[in-house]
Formats: sequence, structure tokens, C-alpha cells
Amino acid sequence: MSSSPVAIGLDVGGTKALAVLVDRDGNVLHELRTPTPHDDSVGAGVATATVLAGQIREICAAHDLDVATTPVGVGVPGLVRRDGSLAFAPNLQSASGADFPALLRELSGSQSVSMENDGNAAAVAEHAWGAGRGSSEFAMITLGTGIGGGLIANGELIRGRNGFGGEVGHMVVQANGIRCNCGRRGCWERYASGTGLGTLTTEAAREGHLPTLVAQRGSAEVVRAEDVTAAAAQGLEEAAAVLREVAWWLALGLSNLVELFDIDHFVISGGLSNAAGQLLPVAREELVTMVMAAEAYAGFTLEPSQLGDRTGALGAALVAFQRGA
Amino acid sequence: MSSSPVAIGLDVGGTKALAVLVDRDGNVLHELRTPTPHDDSVGAGVATATVLAGQIREICAAHDLDVATTPVGVGVPGLVRRDGSLAFAPNLQSASGADFPALLRELSGSQSVSMENDGNAAAVAEHAWGAGRGSSEFAMITLGTGIGGGLIANGELIRGRNGFGGEVGHMVVQANGIRCNCGRRGCWERYASGTGLGTLTTEAAREGHLPTLVAQRGSAEVVRAEDVTAAAAQGLEEAAAVLREVAWWLALGLSNLVELFDIDHFVISGGLSNAAGQLLPVAREELVTMVMAAEAYAGFTLEPSQLGDRTGALGAALVAFQRGA
Repeated sequence: MSSSPVAIGLDVGGTKALAVLVDRDGNVLHELRTPTPHDDSVGAGVATATVLAGQIREICAAHDLDVATTPVGVGVPGLVRRDGSLAFAPNLQSASGADFPALLRELSGSQSVSMENDGNAAAVAEHAWGAGRGSSEFAMITLGTGIGGGLIANGELIRGRNGFGGEVGHMVVQANGIRCNCGRRGCWERYASGTGLGTLTTEAAREGHLPTLVAQRGSAEVVRAEDVTAAAAQGLEEAAAVLREVAWWLALGLSNLVELFDIDHFVISGGLSNAAGQLLPVAREELVTMVMAAEAYAGFTLEPSQLGDRTGALGAALVAFQRGA
Repeated sequence: MSSSPVAIGLDVGGTKALAVLVDRDGNVLHELRTPTPHDDSVGAGVATATVLAGQIREICAAHDLDVATTPVGVGVPGLVRRDGSLAFAPNLQSASGADFPALLRELSGSQSVSMENDGNAAAVAEHAWGAGRGSSEFAMITLGTGIGGGLIANGELIRGRNGFGGEVGHMVVQANGIRCNCGRRGCWERYASGTGLGTLTTEAAREGHLPTLVAQRGSAEVVRAEDVTAAAAQGLEEAAAVLREVAWWLALGLSNLVELFDIDHFVISGGLSNAAGQLLPVAREELVTMVMAAEAYAGFTLEPSQLGDRTGALGAALVAFQRGA
């Protein structure tokens, strides 16, 4: 447990790294966004760590903070071991296997680096400062290209034996289903993420279920997920039908989490959650029809993140407060 | 937390109720087995509670214990609310909705009744006294007619918001799959339980994949799951192939638990676990091929329960120690 009044949180995404300086109440005092490099010519994670080290030094300089003692937390998309090293990062291949704490110590001079999976970091942030406040059982679900997440049970993050807990997107919901980037088949994220919406859009367009959009765009092959969300928002029924299908798959995975954890509260973030207004009410309705003995539950809450795209960085800062020196 | 040196644990199964008197080290001082009544003419759970009350009084009389103050724990197959009432029990319909603590207080005079789902009770027992000792993350999996279970994370049972956590058998692994008793489709227990073995056996027999067994029994329709396990134990390849298929489905559900909880330790009990010697090694091999980045894990342990068919009753007694007055 760090006693520092402020911490730096870094969220390493596939396209950009977001750095925030926050106080103990979660107020953001400084914010930086830098493109994530995908250069693996200089050793696993070195290019990424160099960018992060630059962010750490810039923030410390601006606020007259000692780099060595300011706690730093880093959220990364992948399997983070409890010792902070990155075991596997399918969407950040150049950093897979990197020992980030050691690299950041070396490159920035920071002596207090804590690592966490980005979905887990988001869960921790929403739990402390966002939509999960006061909720001792909830699931954070990030609907982006894939599906990330973090699970809070008994008021605590489920980290698991190695620290890999909360890989909700790679729960198989369709045995022998669509091949996933992770190597498995039928993972939830193949159906209910941005990628899932893309797959269902292409399928619907090819099968003649999106005649208006196909006519507008010229051919079935070029109709995109964004066309569907935009058209559905404008009330086009054929587009709304595709979103309902995604909502069905979303509900299916959530219903599994209900059975396993008895969780009735889901906080949704990520790119696809921009369609939350259309997606979440349908998913909620489907969920009630799916859960065993649903009437025994008080109800299910599906709500958007309260911290937006900063939730991962804020969670990383929180992890730094909790685990930092 | 009760201070009593002994507790009574009751495990209410679909066919029999097992009662044990145990000390704080888990030693069984007394054991009773009574058929479970399925009579709903006298009010939800009254027939069952009458049997349990008789067991409680018999054990107390034999050991000169005060019925009022001896802590009693009851494990039941169904969704148990945190207040002890039974919200839903698909395989014990006559008791669905029963307020067991109140009934047992009335019928036996016990003033300290704690309730738990039977899979959760089994997890607690194996954690304290069995194969899960010293393991802060493990899953108890009971392979019977269905699949029950209990999940231990961060060293604690995941009870969830209402107390319904750990319904592993009703995790959907095949969207739009086989209809389950619970109303859902494609639940894990449709494929990997005793029922799943039965389904796969019938399918294999009808499709001509069990020629020896069909010839022995006279027709495809009468080949049973037990024929397959017996023949597989004797080395009949066609039977072993069916068991391997069950093992594949078993591994699929376990792999989901790995992704969600980062659990690498599974304790297996229940009727189907009698085929553990044939089932578990294959399931373990399949599991390694299924888990994302399996090489990042230290390995996976699948082992049979150490407490046998008493695991639920022992867990119920433990719950009585932990939560009893």
C-alpha cells in the first residue's frame, strides 16, 4: 500500500497509450495520449516501455514529482503474471513476454511499478470510482475489438492463481464455433464484440437481410459494423435486427456469468458500448429469458461505464496506490 | 461462528439424505442414510424436513447433545438464498420454495440451521479437509445426473449476490444446443455429466459406433451409460471412444473456468467420477490444448474428491460451524 497522495496510471491499448495522474479520490490532474508503437526490432516491449517511460517522466516533471517514488500502475491487454510480467498479449505481440516492471525501472527510473490486465484494471476503477461503487459482485465487460473484463466477487477482484483471471471474452459459448485469434473456437468475443458485430453484419449483408445498406454502399462486402450502428440509431429496422442479434450473444455470455458468479450487475465499456442505448436494453431483456430461475433474482442491471475511456488508466493508478511501494 | 465442538451435516440428494455428526477436524462420529421423500401433498419441503428433523433428533439422542444448540448445516441441490430458503430445486421439486431453516426449527427444535447449495458445501469440505486443502483457487465439480459445483477464489467460496453462485452445470457451451431441464439450451451438464454420457451413448449406438455393445445387449436403444463405462474399463475401444468424447466436453467447460477464474485445480466427485481413471487423464490432455496460452500456466490438476460421497454432508457441517449460532 503506497502512501503517496498521487499515482500515475497507464493504459496501453493496441493503438494508443493513455497516461493519467490521479489523486486518491480519482480526480485526473494530468492526461497524456501517445500512439502505441508496434516495433519488435528492439526486444519484447522495449518500444512500448520507452513511450511509457517518456509519459512517466513528462508527468513527473510537470508536477514536480520524484520519478523514483511516485507509484505507477500499468494496464495492458493480455495475461499479466502476479510478478508483473506479460505472459501473452495477442493484440500487442511486440510486448508479449516483456518484463515491464524491470523495463520501466530501467528506462524511467521508477521504483514502484505495478501491472494489471486492462480489463481487471477497469473493473477496479469502476468499483472504486464508477458504476460499480458499493457493488460487491459485479462484472466489468469491455466490448472492443474483442471482449475484455474483470470480475469482482466478495468485494474483491478475481485475479486467480497466476493473475490471469477475468478473460471473459475467451469463454466458449459455441463448441466448435468460429475460430478465435487466441486459437480456440467459439469464444464469446467472436460473436458479441465489435468483431462479432462485423461478422454478423457481413453475414446479414450477404444473405440479403440488409438490402437498404447494401444498396447505399454498393455491395454487400463493403457494409461495415459502423453502418449498422449508425442506421440502427436512425431507426432502420434491418440494421436494428443485426444489433438485436449481437445483443442476444451478449446476453448469452452474461447469463453464463450469472450462473457461475451470481452476478446481477454488469458495467459495459469499450467501442461497441457507444451503441449501448440500442444494445443494452435488448440484452437485458434476453438475459431475463436465459437465466435459470430468473424470477429468483432481484433483477439485472446493465449499465455503461461511468469513467469512459479513462477507466483502464484510472484502474491502473488505483492498482499503483494499492500495491505500490 | 459456532463454538460447538461438533456439528451435524445433512446432504439432501434426489434419492437419499445423508446425515453426519462431525468434530472440528472433520472426523465423522455418526452417519445415517435415509431415502428422500418426494411428497408434496403436505407443503413445500415438509416431507423432506420431517426426515431431516428425525435424523437430527436421532443423532443428538445417540450422543447426548442438545438439539437446540447443536449447529446444523444442510446442503441441498438447488438455488439457496443467503437467508437459507430454497429458491429453486429442479431435482427436488417437492421442496422448491421451502423455508428449510424455519421448518427444521419447528420440526426438530434446532435453533441453529445454516443452508447451502450442495455443490458449494462440497467445495467448502474439500477446501478444508480434502483435495482442495491449501488451494486458494480451485473448482469443485460434481458429475452426477447433472453437473454441480462450487468455486473457491481468493481462498473464499463464491456465493454471489443472492447465494446462487457456482451453478457451473448451467453454463452454456453450445448456443442453441440440447434443451436442459433448467429451461436453457446447450448447458454444459447436457454433455459432460452422467446424462451427457447417456446421450452420447445412445447417439453412438444408433450411429453404429458401438457394434459390440449393441450386439451384446440386443439393440441400440438399450445400451446404457454403465455398459460403456464397464466396457471401457475392460479395454473395449469403441466404448473408450465414447468416454473420450465425454472427456472432451468435460475439458471444454473446465477450460471456460480457467479463462474466467484462472483456476488450475479441479476436484471431481459424483457418480460419473467413478470412471475418473479413464475420464480425467483424457480431459486433462484436452484441457491443455484448449486453454489460451496454456504454456503460461504451471499445469492443470484434475483429481477425484478425497471425501467421496460424504463431501456434501461434511461441507454442510462445516457451514454449520462457520455460520451457526
